[in-house]
Amino acid sequence: MIYLDNSATTKPYDDVLQSYITVAQNYFGNPSSLHALGGEAERLLSQSRSVIAGLLGVKHTEIVFTSGGTEGNNLAIKGTAIALRSRGRHIITTAVEHASVSEAFKQLETLGFEVTYVPVDENGAVSVQSIEQALRHDTVLVSIIHVNNETGAVQPIAEIGRLLRKHPKVRFHTDHVQGVGKVPLAFYDANIDLCTISGHKFHGVKGTGILYVREGVLLDPILSGGQQESQYRAGTENLPGIVAMAKALRMTLEKQENKIRHLNEMKQALLSFFGSMPNVILNTPNASAPHIVNVSFPGLKPEVIVHALEERDIFVSTKSACSSKAKEVSHVLLEMGRGREAAESAIRISLSVENTMSEIQQFQQIVQEVIPKLYEVTR
Amino acid sequence: MIYLDNSATTKPYDDVLQSYITVAQNYFGNPSSLHALGGEAERLLSQSRSVIAGLLGVKHTEIVFTSGGTEGNNLAIKGTAIALRSRGRHIITTAVEHASVSEAFKQLETLGFEVTYVPVDENGAVSVQSIEQALRHDTVLVSIIHVNNETGAVQPIAEIGRLLRKHPKVRFHTDHVQGVGKVPLAFYDANIDLCTISGHKFHGVKGTGILYVREGVLLDPILSGGQQESQYRAGTENLPGIVAMAKALRMTLEKQENKIRHLNEMKQALLSFFGSMPNVILNTPNASAPHIVNVSFPGLKPEVIVHALEERDIFVSTKSACSSKAKEVSHVLLEMGRGREAAESAIRISLSVENTMSEIQQFQQIVQEVIPKLYEVTR
Ligand SMILES: Cc1ncc(COP(=O)(O)O)c(C=O)c1O
Ligand SMILES: Cc1ncc(COP(=O)(O)O)c(C=O)c1O
Repeated sequence: MIYLDNSATTKPYDDVLQSYITVAQNYFGNPSSLHALGGEAERLLSQSRSVIAGLLGVKHTEIVFTSGGTEGNNLAIKGTAIALRSRGRHIITTAVEHASVSEAFKQLETLGFEVTYVPVDENGAVSVQSIEQALRHDTVLVSIIHVNNETGAVQPIAEIGRLLRKHPKVRFHTDHVQGVGKVPLAFYDANIDLCTISGHKFHGVKGTGILYVREGVLLDPILSGGQQESQYRAGTENLPGIVAMAKALRMTLEKQENKIRHLNEMKQALLSFFGSMPNVILNTPNASAPHIVNVSFPGLKPEVIVHALEERDIFVSTKSACSSKAKEVSHVLLEMGRGREAAESAIRISLSVENTMSEIQQFQQIVQEVIPKLYEVTR
Repeated sequence: MIYLDNSATTKPYDDVLQSYITVAQNYFGNPSSLHALGGEAERLLSQSRSVIAGLLGVKHTEIVFTSGGTEGNNLAIKGTAIALRSRGRHIITTAVEHASVSEAFKQLETLGFEVTYVPVDENGAVSVQSIEQALRHDTVLVSIIHVNNETGAVQPIAEIGRLLRKHPKVRFHTDHVQGVGKVPLAFYDANIDLCTISGHKFHGVKGTGILYVREGVLLDPILSGGQQESQYRAGTENLPGIVAMAKALRMTLEKQENKIRHLNEMKQALLSFFGSMPNVILNTPNASAPHIVNVSFPGLKPEVIVHALEERDIFVSTKSACSSKAKEVSHVLLEMGRGREAAESAIRISLSVENTMSEIQQFQQIVQEVIPKLYEVTR
């Protein structure tokens, strides 16, 4: 099996699952319980929080555990909008966000908020100027995806953060779900107030995530209840999942430079391979993350390519997993002005450090066999 | 170790953890992915949904997977209030709810909803009449806890459901988190629209839960995004956790009658034991769940009792885990009119079917040694 759908989800590392099981069996107490079993669980929780804070270069009090990227994005966006609603009701995002951001904004529109959707250029990037132009006196939030999950396009988060430093009343959120371990981001330097991370995208377990909440940032919880997570997020903590995520993050971020180099080598190999194929459109822009390659095969249906490759035990995807079943074209590619033909026929290859150059070579060989046959059949 | 804090959380069954690991290792694909790994994961997801629906006697389309009880309660309550806000802004609950319900209601108050908190009698029960009297033309939701997490008091859910049948525009939600496996509840018969369940309370894993959403019931999602869970709840599914929860629910509900009998025997033993001790106040009402015993030791601080028992390797709790660290008296006992002395000195013993009569006997012996010593010290 050659698994090249790592932006949809990754296989948990064995060591990560081992941690999960150890904690689930031996530290099952509720961290909120007063007794020793609760105390042990609470210590493990706060240890994981410190490890993660250290890895991200922030304070442990700034780490909020969530159930995943979708929750992190919803909490950051709705939590900010509701908390600051008396200050202003204008919020800004881009036209190329993940559904968990764009749908949160749409819902806020129905609740009386006004949204500016900033467009992207042909490389899938927003300009700092367009954000600046969108700002109003009543803007309370700017939310920008860091690494696009379909194309790998990287947004100028640090530059936008610098701009927003001049607008201290505006909260800045970024969806870093596809960036972790692939495109380093310095939260403080980039002036980020809120940053979303999801555990299962870097070999952690599903149902875990982190929202970085900068000290002093106000949020109305979307999960109200107990006093957990500094009251930003109630609910009995998923301690085994959290410990497992801390381990996965440590494994992901150690020797990060080497890993990024390895990803980049595989990506470059793929880009030059596809570049040499006739009729292929490269959708991944130059300035993009090292783990995503997006290409279109005009005239072919992407699901047909996915299934043909799957028969050869290779797994790639059509756009993002979340919306892959909605039989529409890629709105991200349309927003980039790539045209309907490209947007209708794109597939995404997404890498993990666990992939090898030899897998990439095998993949290329099989693509060379499969794609011409598909073109033949469709003619 | 004698673990008697099962209402805070339970130890996952070994078989449940085994299922978790098997799925995490072998079915790690994203159920939304179009390829075969996604398809396998999707099949496993829908199989778990059907198993759970069958066990609960509802349709598989009525099962929404969540990250736990807190999320289920928040989704049911906020989701209904927001979805029906143009129809009415009056919502009803009781004065003895879990924090994940009461805080959700408080938050809705700040958003312009009007809340009636129905009081309870000395047994911790609301009357059907008091609900009827609270109903208004603009009431959209009634949310009532099934089994109280501090006292075990059982609310007349079926009777309230019958009343609400005459008010078809009012949605009926119940927090069944402490009821599962202990106090059977027929969702259709009781006319329930929304019902919350949490996996870690019945030997499933943390970070899993179910919201039953009756067919046709409108909810605004609190986690917006992808198309998962019929758009009631976006986010990559925690498949290993869901499969594990399905297994835990099956194990919990099979031979349920025997299990309830076993729990009741232990509870009766505890009640007659505490009844025979001098100065002890029994807070658990007669009509209560088989797994919770709540007693007060006037003059003793409950945290002192918890720690004294913990030294003997016995684990019990002061009120609910979620609020055990907030150093306040039990508001549930105050609402029952038990007085400050009782409310300040209560401990909760909560059972699982895994507990044995011999553990209960050992517990009683140790209590008989420990409590008099504590009274001596405090005099
Ligand atoms: C960019 C981006 N944001 C958010 C999410 C949502 O994360 P999760 O699946 O953990 O809810 C995803 C993946 O699905 C993603 O790729
Ligand atoms: C009655 C009740 N409702 C809701 C919850 C919240 O469930 P969870 O801990 O899964 O968020 C709990 C337990 O904490 C509970 O006892």
